[in-house]
Amino acid sequence: MFRDRNDTIAAIATPLGEAGISMIRVSGAEALGVVDAVFRGKSSLLEALSHTIHHGRIVHPQDGIVDDVLASVFRKPHSYTGDNAVEISCHGSYYVSRKVLETVIAAGARMADPGEFTQRAFLNGKMDLTQAEAVADLIHSKTALAHRASVEQLNGRLSAAINEIRKRLIDLCSLLELELDFAEEGIALADRKKTISSFECAITDIDILIQSYTYGKFIRDGVKVVLAGSPNVGKSSLLNLLLQENRAIVSEHPGTTRDVIEETLLIDGIAFRLVDTAGLRTTTDIIEQEGVRRSNDQISSADVILLLLDLSSPLGSAIEGVLQFLKEFGDRVILVLNKSDIRSSGFEEEAFKDYDSVAISCVSRQGVPSLAKKMVGRVVGGFDSHSSSIKIQSDRHRQLLKMTQNSLVSAKNVFVDGLGNELVAIDLRGALNYLGEIIGLTTPEDILNNIFSRFCIGK
Amino acid sequence: MFRDRNDTIAAIATPLGEAGISMIRVSGAEALGVVDAVFRGKSSLLEALSHTIHHGRIVHPQDGIVDDVLASVFRKPHSYTGDNAVEISCHGSYYVSRKVLETVIAAGARMADPGEFTQRAFLNGKMDLTQAEAVADLIHSKTALAHRASVEQLNGRLSAAINEIRKRLIDLCSLLELELDFAEEGIALADRKKTISSFECAITDIDILIQSYTYGKFIRDGVKVVLAGSPNVGKSSLLNLLLQENRAIVSEHPGTTRDVIEETLLIDGIAFRLVDTAGLRTTTDIIEQEGVRRSNDQISSADVILLLLDLSSPLGSAIEGVLQFLKEFGDRVILVLNKSDIRSSGFEEEAFKDYDSVAISCVSRQGVPSLAKKMVGRVVGGFDSHSSSIKIQSDRHRQLLKMTQNSLVSAKNVFVDGLGNELVAIDLRGALNYLGEIIGLTTPEDILNNIFSRFCIGK
Repeated sequence: MFRDRNDTIAAIATPLGEAGISMIRVSGAEALGVVDAVFRGKSSLLEALSHTIHHGRIVHPQDGIVDDVLASVFRKPHSYTGDNAVEISCHGSYYVSRKVLETVIAAGARMADPGEFTQRAFLNGKMDLTQAEAVADLIHSKTALAHRASVEQLNGRLSAAINEIRKRLIDLCSLLELELDFAEEGIALADRKKTISSFECAITDIDILIQSYTYGKFIRDGVKVVLAGSPNVGKSSLLNLLLQENRAIVSEHPGTTRDVIEETLLIDGIAFRLVDTAGLRTTTDIIEQEGVRRSNDQISSADVILLLLDLSSPLGSAIEGVLQFLKEFGDRVILVLNKSDIRSSGFEEEAFKDYDSVAISCVSRQGVPSLAKKMVGRVVGGFDSHSSSIKIQSDRHRQLLKMTQNSLVSAKNVFVDGLGNELVAIDLRGALNYLGEIIGLTTPEDILNNIFSRFCIGK
Repeated sequence: MFRDRNDTIAAIATPLGEAGISMIRVSGAEALGVVDAVFRGKSSLLEALSHTIHHGRIVHPQDGIVDDVLASVFRKPHSYTGDNAVEISCHGSYYVSRKVLETVIAAGARMADPGEFTQRAFLNGKMDLTQAEAVADLIHSKTALAHRASVEQLNGRLSAAINEIRKRLIDLCSLLELELDFAEEGIALADRKKTISSFECAITDIDILIQSYTYGKFIRDGVKVVLAGSPNVGKSSLLNLLLQENRAIVSEHPGTTRDVIEETLLIDGIAFRLVDTAGLRTTTDIIEQEGVRRSNDQISSADVILLLLDLSSPLGSAIEGVLQFLKEFGDRVILVLNKSDIRSSGFEEEAFKDYDSVAISCVSRQGVPSLAKKMVGRVVGGFDSHSSSIKIQSDRHRQLLKMTQNSLVSAKNVFVDGLGNELVAIDLRGALNYLGEIIGLTTPEDILNNIFSRFCIGK
């Protein structure tokens, strides 16, 4: 159940830490009065015009002056949430920002739940659900591509595409339902061919959106690249070379313990998370076995696998294991033939001619840029990374689009089979319902709550 | 040398991290034009009134829309710095806030140095130096007392006290110098007794400020309490008991590796940093020796030492070591006689009767509140922690006050010895110069730069 939408909520909206400024956000019908009760400025905030800034002090009823602040006043509906709102800028200290929050809460606000400001914006019709979801994605975006995809979604491009498809389906549905009224007279209002084509067109449009998910997910979450291969084949050297030649993304959680070495670097705007693994070989050593098991886990969850082979020495009997590996994971593998500077004529290159491969030398750096290009190619695939086509980024959207598609396919089949407009309309209404769930028109309350609970507090 | 004061500076003013909102601060004569060049809103920021907020988008010349933002406009001199200023609120993401900053810099701003906004506020006469220093202290304040001391200093209480003393000394100096003009006529304008009393009064007032430093420093930096004593005397049990009975301050740097266990807790609003040490005893074990050496380092730098003794067993020959320890560190020690519930009649309590001690039991908790009271007493000493007297917190202030005092004592002596008003005036002018340096009137540029360089960027 949604919490009371009429009370006044407050939260620290800036990251916690010591800096120049922190901001406490207050929103609700009584927001101006609540803040004004603890604000000492030249004039009352209750008299203030919307979008004006007021210098004053926050004064705690018992503890006295908390800080010199600026209070920004927003009047309904011209605020982020659509309700009255005050944003209080104070000095950027843990103590001060918490104390300002405490003072505002003592004056009658309550602590906001995670995402509650955005939830109110959604409930007040300031944004639809895909836009609200884009707010969270935007905050977590780490690359230019992820950022652009979120900004586009925030600006309503996905909503516009969904609404456009919805509009066409609603028109179609109305027509088919209208026909029902004239069914006894045998009047067909909908042209049969045109109707089938309308279904097919919608199914294709939705399919394009579904297909964009793979790329959208890569943009949002980055691409997991696992370096595999026997010990000493040059995995760490390659990792270092790639890091040198591309911009690394600095991890924001430096203290995190990791089982495996992981580095994130940007190639053509895409974040590749490179994972080095223990050497791939059978071993009886318990500790190494554990390492190998972890390598296998990594390989199973990889988006791209760089399998390194050593061109300087023939594989011999080991070739069986490699071919077995390729058979299992081949579609995700780029074969990296290392040590091309000291290539042995005995190396069994012929055996791998059907696989995507690139010869490199970690000594001369030859071939490394081609490898980087191949990695990008694997991700971008059929997509033009610079195209302005919409890329869906959320698994929720993808699943609802698939359900929409299933309903449309069913509707079309029912229509083709002439089973009656009533049945077609049921499937069509199902499809419309799924589309509405994406943009928040028909989304069940528990799913809404779940979406907003994943936001940070203060958003 | 100060950097150019006419160019436009920009920085991210909120802590880095993912949250609802980040703020980018821009200040300088051209701030409105610089931001307006990359801002797309309903109207130009150049036309905006001071203290108004404008919704729009930041658009990077090459990369397109960066974010939906709110731009707050402040017109000279009604801003923090006293120059024109714009504060841009964007979504609280690493990527977005950096990109907004990058866009503003591409439009003609430059990255602000640490503390440069506050430095400009100082140079533009918006605040004096003690107030600027209070900004940094306020941001780092972690307790209610530290916060209040900083707020009072920010609101000019220290400046007012310094200015009041300065005014009296300037009047005195003028009178003494005026007398010089009439020296040949032998006219004494300054009453001898009153002049001596004026000197003494100023010396006393400054002494009170100097004395307040010890307490002011405790308020600002907390009090370092080291728990010392033989192994198994109950140091860890006592630490846990104190933590249970008082509110612990959560460390903001949880990942920091420490050589010794350190916990910060609040008693009566004062932050006590409790350090547990390795047992104090002579040992041949190399690793333990290292532990003991570190303990000794900790003890040397402690503000208060809790030396634990075990009431349940007589010290015997070990008493010599304890008495030696008390001889060396006695004035900082509180003797904690633990295990009072199983007190041995053979314990040599008589030997310690001249030292400040308290008997406790970590089992029954008896005596622990008395110990906490004693700890607070050690810090507060002659000061009333709830009095509204000014507490200086900065070593810079203390040193300048001492130099002022020395000059005044010298001036008074020269006056008493009748060595001539010229010499008295030289000392008096020296004292006035030191006082001026505290509030920023006569502070050398390199010292100013040094003060502001310790601020964070964006302040």
